[in-house]
Amino acid sequence: MVMGQKALTAQEVEVALRDVPGWSVKNGRLLREFKFGSFVEAFGFLTSLALVAERMDHHPEIFNLYNRVKIELETHDANGISKLDFELAAAANKLAVNATSS
Amino acid sequence: MVMGQKALTAQEVEVALRDVPGWSVKNGRLLREFKFGSFVEAFGFLTSLALVAERMDHHPEIFNLYNRVKIELETHDANGISKLDFELAAAANKLAVNATSS
Repeated sequence: MVMGQKALTAQEVEVALRDVPGWSVKNGRLLREFKFGSFVEAFGFLTSLALVAERMDHHPEIFNLYNRVKIELETHDANGISKLDFELAAAANKLAVNATSS
Repeated sequence: MVMGQKALTAQEVEVALRDVPGWSVKNGRLLREFKFGSFVEAFGFLTSLALVAERMDHHPEIFNLYNRVKIELETHDANGISKLDFELAAAANKLAVNATSS
């Protein structure tokens, strides 16, 4: 877990959301559902995201069933959504160019 | 999805559970929670399981947060738990020798 991140304000979150299409906030978490063409594509995405997350030392909550993936992000250390969550969300969007929001 | 699988009876499930330590049945699904030493170990397990699942053409429901993994199995085609679910559960246990049930 990366230390020193602070929670964004509601207004900062609203602004930051404009840069990550498909993502929304629910129960204090940043989340997006992705639908891929197959399990292979869905898990390929998850594997790429896992490498990015490990490098960032910031790990998403992952749900996967067949071609569907749900990612939820929050920063425990900040007790909210931080800049780091938006960085990971943006990275996920770049990796998921072939996915639709389900 | 593999066709032709049929749901096991409650008694068959009870017997089959003896061979997959850590697994239990909840809401008609076969499930186990695993706790690993790190995210790298947890995701390494998931990646191995994904390859097994793709080869079996039988896919688990996956939940992951950092070093914790939850796997849920059911056979939609059979509308219940089939032999295939137990095969995948046994494969998961073989792959997760370093995990504890969380």
